[in-house]
Amino acid sequence: MPSADWSLHPQLADDTLAIGDLALSRVLLSKDANYPWLVLVPRRAGAVEIIDLEEAEQAQLMTEIARVSRALKEVTGCHKLNVAALGNAVPQLHVHFIARHTTDAAWPRPIWGTAPPRAYDPREVEKFIGALRARIGLD
Amino acid sequence: MPSADWSLHPQLADDTLAIGDLALSRVLLSKDANYPWLVLVPRRAGAVEIIDLEEAEQAQLMTEIARVSRALKEVTGCHKLNVAALGNAVPQLHVHFIARHTTDAAWPRPIWGTAPPRAYDPREVEKFIGALRARIGLD
Repeated sequence: MPSADWSLHPQLADDTLAIGDLALSRVLLSKDANYPWLVLVPRRAGAVEIIDLEEAEQAQLMTEIARVSRALKEVTGCHKLNVAALGNAVPQLHVHFIARHTTDAAWPRPIWGTAPPRAYDPREVEKFIGALRARIGLD
Repeated sequence: MPSADWSLHPQLADDTLAIGDLALSRVLLSKDANYPWLVLVPRRAGAVEIIDLEEAEQAQLMTEIARVSRALKEVTGCHKLNVAALGNAVPQLHVHFIARHTTDAAWPRPIWGTAPPRAYDPREVEKFIGALRARIGLD
């Protein structure tokens, strides 16, 4: 299903840490510690929109969206998930998953353009990635 | 598949015009003329997150996401689609589809919190709804 000639967009590579690969998509963690924030990137060269994927890949993407959503919700105990495929700045198809808490830096607004990025504590992020890997089933 | 006891959230009813019903979801047009902007609402009482839907409904939602995305892209000739399930303000599960143009009021930022809403010309919106209904297959 994934393309041999796919590679992660350099901007996504800069902004994230790798969590692991599902059947279709790479799972990434945003380096912005303001929010628990995952990104799912289908490993399909040239895909910009969800409708650029074949029908079976769209179905697989929904399966992976559900799997990542459940894991992020359970690991963070968040109040709400924000799930979004925007891609105005980075055209490579990617889906954001932001675990929202009513106490977070942007609540109740969408997160984009609100708080400046904040760095993770290295031990905190390592523990978080471990919990996510275990819950997503990437170990 | 839809619940008998489902009804559209009053805020969504206020902010949109009805386009029609697909097997799972109601299709709505945002009254904000800044952007061609559709909203898909699964008619499933109590659903807040995508993962609140059963697995078959999640698959159906992806089918409807693809159908609405293709229609919106073809009718508007947009440069990019923004597809998002946020729900911080209105908890009833709903998916936004915004047809983005590089000349629009918010480009390249996400649309939320940027330009004040703008009303449609009544004849313009009637024609747009007709084109969307035909392309989505809701006639």
